[in-house]
Amino acid sequence: MSAEFNLIKQYFTRPNAQTDLGIGDDAALIKVSTGHQLAISSDMSVVGTHFFQDAASYDIGWKSLAVNISDMAAMGANPKWTTLSIALPEINHGWLAAFSTGFFDCADQFSVDLIGGDTTRGPLNISVTIMGETPVGKAITRNNAKAGDDIWVSGEVGHAALGLAYLQDKVSLDDEARSTCLLALNQPQPRVALGLALRDIAHSCIDISDGLLADLSHILKASRPNEIGAILQLEAMPCLNAIKARNQEPKIQQAILAGGDDYELCFTASSQQREAITTLGKKLGINITRIGETNTTGNLTVTLDNKILNTSQLGYEHFKI
Amino acid sequence: MSAEFNLIKQYFTRPNAQTDLGIGDDAALIKVSTGHQLAISSDMSVVGTHFFQDAASYDIGWKSLAVNISDMAAMGANPKWTTLSIALPEINHGWLAAFSTGFFDCADQFSVDLIGGDTTRGPLNISVTIMGETPVGKAITRNNAKAGDDIWVSGEVGHAALGLAYLQDKVSLDDEARSTCLLALNQPQPRVALGLALRDIAHSCIDISDGLLADLSHILKASRPNEIGAILQLEAMPCLNAIKARNQEPKIQQAILAGGDDYELCFTASSQQREAITTLGKKLGINITRIGETNTTGNLTVTLDNKILNTSQLGYEHFKI
Repeated sequence: MSAEFNLIKQYFTRPNAQTDLGIGDDAALIKVSTGHQLAISSDMSVVGTHFFQDAASYDIGWKSLAVNISDMAAMGANPKWTTLSIALPEINHGWLAAFSTGFFDCADQFSVDLIGGDTTRGPLNISVTIMGETPVGKAITRNNAKAGDDIWVSGEVGHAALGLAYLQDKVSLDDEARSTCLLALNQPQPRVALGLALRDIAHSCIDISDGLLADLSHILKASRPNEIGAILQLEAMPCLNAIKARNQEPKIQQAILAGGDDYELCFTASSQQREAITTLGKKLGINITRIGETNTTGNLTVTLDNKILNTSQLGYEHFKI
Repeated sequence: MSAEFNLIKQYFTRPNAQTDLGIGDDAALIKVSTGHQLAISSDMSVVGTHFFQDAASYDIGWKSLAVNISDMAAMGANPKWTTLSIALPEINHGWLAAFSTGFFDCADQFSVDLIGGDTTRGPLNISVTIMGETPVGKAITRNNAKAGDDIWVSGEVGHAALGLAYLQDKVSLDDEARSTCLLALNQPQPRVALGLALRDIAHSCIDISDGLLADLSHILKASRPNEIGAILQLEAMPCLNAIKARNQEPKIQQAILAGGDDYELCFTASSQQREAITTLGKKLGINITRIGETNTTGNLTVTLDNKILNTSQLGYEHFKI
């Protein structure tokens, strides 16, 4: 794009705290701490697929980085560096100012340096690569769930999907639920401190981006060849009381079980860790809720009032494990 | 995208040679070699901006990785890992098969592992982040050119721009020139071996993506506060004889001096290194040509037959230093 370098200088260049060479050369240079592995993840956000055309650019900036930081949290990695590539249909300074403010507010909250990227002309597309550190061998992967583990989630589930459904006129929400759900959708809070603390506690961990059942099934599938399954209790799911009271409604069930975009952590741990996890939640000031347990059935089952729920109509994918 | 995981498994998952944990978890894990810095660069390629709608997807795959590897070459870094995020308007298996073949042919040639990324629905967009290693303090940056340095380029310059101009019906080329220039445009060859060998030879280095004068001006500007300039001889520029014979034509001058996309290395070095550089070119089997020298004028001047060329009409940007 014609004004590429001015855009980067104007909106995306700031002093870095932990980077040897930042934006401005053919590549950035970093040093990974001794005894650590580097964790790397990339996510692409596209207008019309991941956010509405008229979404607030502050939120787009925040969320495009937050969803990547969430991947670090899910690995038990400490996020430190990011690149940002962005395609823009035109140079809109108001849009860019708010976008970069949202992006850097998120970067500041989690002490992440922006070290490189690209700006170009094209349909709006935001591509972020995040890098973080974890001591060698300490990353929490998906493939180590054990039969008999407790299954836990942080924060609340289904809120982001209900925020989206509200914007699409698919569900009604009272004032409190509406504001809570829209905030969950627009400004997700990556659970970095929790992820770091889970390194020595969790057997497996994932962040909820595709939906609780889909993401839990990723854990179960990755933890084969042992025939591992799980049973969840819908009434145990953490969400606003006003939402919980409606958990007989298919739309609410769908949001809780199959809605994505919550970016909470779903993890499994030995039942011997219950007290440690409860203490950890209090220390960090976040809800951590036990929602079920893994087993040897090979199936993923959800119950409500002790009856098995038919989850085949929830409209999500990747459910089968 | 609905078939995200199938796409990744079908087209983008292969065994990795130098990666602790590859595609399939929330993040990949790598170990950076002891005593090394990690070099990181990101580039985004968009249909209509970086390639034509009907470009061969093999070439798009090759080039989207090659231009990133070229950034590693320009830093004197050894490329080792890459992520690939791609937005696709639809799932076209023929397109994807050829794209991934081109991408992996390039990855194989330079021993790069694909360790992560994203697939999503949207206007065609390819975003790559490359990572490589360089011994601490050995990276070749842009900011260390000295007045009196020789200026060198690898390979040939202007060919890619002439290939593009040919496709746009803006220039005529004979058969040999046409096939050479289209290959330069579609399948650039990153100069990794040269970049690595230049660590102890070059004062500064950049790859030619924006055009020779623009990229050289990046070096000169970065090497301030010293008032550094340069003088180049147009007749010294390496290109096909059939092109060189036409270097009085404005279109040819524009391609050589302001055309981008060559991904050759432009570097500066002490004149005491001439023999070492000539020997290196023979050893690597590539042309390395001395095209001018830096000075203390603060201006970037080009001569042809000992007369100063008016370069103000060449239509490039970032020329002023």
